[in-house]
Amino acid sequence: MDLLKEKILREGHILPGNILKVDSFINHQVDPILMKNIGIEFANYFKAKHITKVVTIESSGIAPAIMTAIALNVPLIIFKKNSTKVLKDDIYQTPITSYTKGLTYELTVSKKYLSPEDNVLIIDDFLANGEAASGAIRLIEQAGATASGIGILIEKTFQPGRKRIEETGIDIYSLARIERFTDDSVIFVEE
Amino acid sequence: MDLLKEKILREGHILPGNILKVDSFINHQVDPILMKNIGIEFANYFKAKHITKVVTIESSGIAPAIMTAIALNVPLIIFKKNSTKVLKDDIYQTPITSYTKGLTYELTVSKKYLSPEDNVLIIDDFLANGEAASGAIRLIEQAGATASGIGILIEKTFQPGRKRIEETGIDIYSLARIERFTDDSVIFVEE
Repeated sequence: MDLLKEKILREGHILPGNILKVDSFINHQVDPILMKNIGIEFANYFKAKHITKVVTIESSGIAPAIMTAIALNVPLIIFKKNSTKVLKDDIYQTPITSYTKGLTYELTVSKKYLSPEDNVLIIDDFLANGEAASGAIRLIEQAGATASGIGILIEKTFQPGRKRIEETGIDIYSLARIERFTDDSVIFVEE
Repeated sequence: MDLLKEKILREGHILPGNILKVDSFINHQVDPILMKNIGIEFANYFKAKHITKVVTIESSGIAPAIMTAIALNVPLIIFKKNSTKVLKDDIYQTPITSYTKGLTYELTVSKKYLSPEDNVLIIDDFLANGEAASGAIRLIEQAGATASGIGILIEKTFQPGRKRIEETGIDIYSLARIERFTDDSVIFVEE
């Protein structure tokens, strides 16, 4: 998606450890035109999958996910990050380790909002190690629902996330696929 | 706003301590049609204020705030909740106490995203004690920007939030104003 790639080239900041900061248009300041276009792009790509729910993980994925949910006219479910395991019968939980932030949390969703009839589209900002996406898939499977697709804004293709997800057979669509970082710029995969 | 009030009456849950749970359409599952309408409603109400930025506090306000930002065609800034004070020159911070959750956090924004020229619209899901809104106003003032309006989804009029904000002179627009809770329902302010 050219609009997103241009933004990354113009405004992204590369930090040590292959960290790409996109604070000025995705994570802290959010570009409204970009988000609207992202929602339409994901909705068009996944429209044949008969999506019934969009899910995301709080909080950087919420803006693109609500735009996708609006374009598909289905509810958005926000998976919560709980710091501890909660012993309650009405929720699904699964542990996630964030390598970037160096912490573990329990990804949590109320049982009310996912059912076996659901075809679920996961939207997230980054795909790197695939920890968050794999956790979201586990929660969807715990509910007996179907994970029908994953829409990612920025994929670091040199990390193992895509391979982990592809092994599940779920269709991934990444809008900007990064092949590698140079000292001061970003090289995208040629498509 | 009738659509929101109907949702509250039909799907809201009243918990002890005057807590209203709106998990099925705002905070956990998010209703796309409702969010789109909320964005348009706030944009119409505040359009004469020449808003240059919409701000919200992560994470329940992000969905209505991005819809408002899209309707106004201005960037959204997500104020972050840091657990501790960070000693850095490039951010503004102010402490907030959440009575509902019984914890304190540092509301945080990068200095890059607010400047003295900005007319800022704050969007949040609830107005109760006004702690979060007051903190957002303090950050906007630290930046030398103007807090031009506050758009709230659900206001508990029996708590002191509105009075605190009105003392600042900032225009508040609440879509659903709750006068009181009965044992099993919600009484809205007659307007």
